[in-house]
This record gives sequence, C-alpha cells and structure tokens, in this order.
Amino acid sequence: MLKSPTDPRWLPCALEGLDGLLVDHAHCEKKAAATALSLVGAYPERERLVRQLSALAIEELRHFRAVLDQLQARRLGLSRDRGDPYAKQLMQHVRSSGEARLMDRLLVGGLIEARSHERLTLLAGGIEDPALAAFYASLARAEKGHARLFVELAEGYGGEGPVGERLDELARHEAEIVAGLPLEPRIH
Amino acid sequence: MLKSPTDPRWLPCALEGLDGLLVDHAHCEKKAAATALSLVGAYPERERLVRQLSALAIEELRHFRAVLDQLQARRLGLSRDRGDPYAKQLMQHVRSSGEARLMDRLLVGGLIEARSHERLTLLAGGIEDPALAAFYASLARAEKGHARLFVELAEGYGGEGPVGERLDELARHEAEIVAGLPLEPRIH
Repeated sequence: MLKSPTDPRWLPCALEGLDGLLVDHAHCEKKAAATALSLVGAYPERERLVRQLSALAIEELRHFRAVLDQLQARRLGLSRDRGDPYAKQLMQHVRSSGEARLMDRLLVGGLIEARSHERLTLLAGGIEDPALAAFYASLARAEKGHARLFVELAEGYGGEGPVGERLDELARHEAEIVAGLPLEPRIH
Repeated sequence: MLKSPTDPRWLPCALEGLDGLLVDHAHCEKKAAATALSLVGAYPERERLVRQLSALAIEELRHFRAVLDQLQARRLGLSRDRGDPYAKQLMQHVRSSGEARLMDRLLVGGLIEARSHERLTLLAGGIEDPALAAFYASLARAEKGHARLFVELAEGYGGEGPVGERLDELARHEAEIVAGLPLEPRIH
C-alpha cells in the first residue's frame, strides 16, 4: 500500500532516541483510538464502520496502556504530545464533504496504519533489548490487519474502482510527506 | 453526590420512548469514552488520571458496543447524535484554566456519571422486558464506581477541602440544569 520504504537512516535514529520514541508511540496509539472514535461519531449510521472502528478504538487503547507499562518500566513519564505534522499534512488531502470525505478519511487512516505497521516491524527487528523487541513484534502483528480494515471499509462504501485510484493518489502524497519530514525518533 | 432525585415522571417517559432512549444511551457511552480520552490528552503528565481514564474509556466503549447489540436486536440503527444540552450546560461551569479547570472537569465528569448511574438504575427497575432490565442492571453495577473515581482523582490533585465545596457548588448547578431541561426519553 505504501509507495516508499522508510529511509534506512530512520531506524538508527529511532534506536538512538528510544525514550522519546516510546513517548511518541504512546501518543500515536491514543490518537489512533481518538481518530477511530471520531469517525464513529461522524458516521453513526454506517453500521459496519461503527462496529469495526469502535473495536479498533478499544484495541488501540489497550496498546496505549501497554506502551505506558513500557514507559513505567523505564521510569519515563508521558509528556505533552508534540503534535503530529505527518498526520496533519496527510489530512490536508482529505476532500471536504460527502462520500468523498468519508472515503479519504478512511484511506488516510489506512495509510497511517500501514506506515505505523512498517515502522513497528523495523523496531521489532532493530531493538536490542529482547523483551522490548518482542513487545514491538507483538504490536506489529496485532496492527497488521488495521490498514486493510480501513481500505475494506472504504471499498464497502465507495466501490472498488475509484477507491483503488484514490488510494494510489493518497499513497503518493504520503510518500512525499514522509520524504519531506525531518528524521526524528518518532513513529511518523 | 446528586442534589436532587430524578423527576418521577422521567421513567414513564423513558419507557414510552424506549427506542429513542437506547439510541441516546449509545451516544452517551461513546461520549463518555471520548471525554475520558480527551482528559488523557489534556493531562498526559498526570499518571494516575491517564491510567484510570484510559481504562474507563475502554469500559465505556465496551458498553457502547453492548448497547449497539441491543439496538441491533431491536432492528434499530444508530442515528446522528442530537447533541447533549445537559453536558453542555454543565461544562459552562468549568473554570477556564490551570488546576481549577482540571478539578472542575473531573467533578463535572463525576456528576454526569452519578446522574447516569441513577437513571440506569431506574431503567433496570422499570423496564418490563426481563433481558433488557437485566442488561441495565448489569450496566448500572458496572458504572457504580465511576462517579467516585472522578471525585477521587479530583481529590488527589486538589486536596479534599476545596474539592468538597466545589463539588457541592457544581452539584447544585447540576440539579438546576436537570430541573430546567424538558422531560424526554434520554439518559440526561
């Protein structure tokens, strides 16, 4: 689904700043839950979306709490969220109304999940501490189907043809956005 | 904690409009989760709050999904949220910054939970369908400690003295707001 692999310099940078990365990751899980919940609030009459994204919100909140445990084990606290220029820039490509907006919100959600999954997998392979590496491997496994879930919801509401084209377009934007952001110890 | 019992005319009104009440109830559970999550986002450095309210958000989302099951069993769909004048009016009493704001947000959260718990208990006692009555009894049990949880968080951050006085003040506002709202088949 992604149009570019993560820059190979990202993993060493993330491992170098592992404490900050964990804090950022906690915020990402919380925001993933909040985004799912916001879609449920915006489209209450879409039964499948409501079911699947409310279940997703619960899962992301469980992951959030699991990352909190990792922070606590390292005597790190959750600090203020630094904001998310990656997601913000992606959201600028979401069309403003109707079915197009629903499709784009779902596809952007799918792309964010795909990028997160890619990076959790990189972390699982790169972290030296075996317990933390195993933690990331288990999260990467758990998150594997999320990108697909968003795309399938979009296909269910929009028909497969135009969804595939739009996903391609948004994925190209996503690749450009990732390329334009500074390398930092953050999930995105 | 509440300064007034629910008007005795509320229960017959709620039972009369049970379908609409179930839809409203689903929205309430979803908004309770969203409010808990928004407090987590606003006060990330408060460890106890983050832990307890992220757990609460998960529980409220589970309740939301359980109410969805009840809707589905009745072939009812979730329609657009009609908004919540009760919560909106209560939020107008939240002070605007610093520790006072945190205290008020927590106490308002506690009062909303207390009122919800009172009304779920009334529903459990008044609904004729035994399965639905049992469902409301189990929800009322599950929600019982939530009001206390919010007040204890406020006490932990604000000291007991001023918290008790402020809770009294806010509870008087809550009673006035409830008395001023039309009787409708809604949770609040």
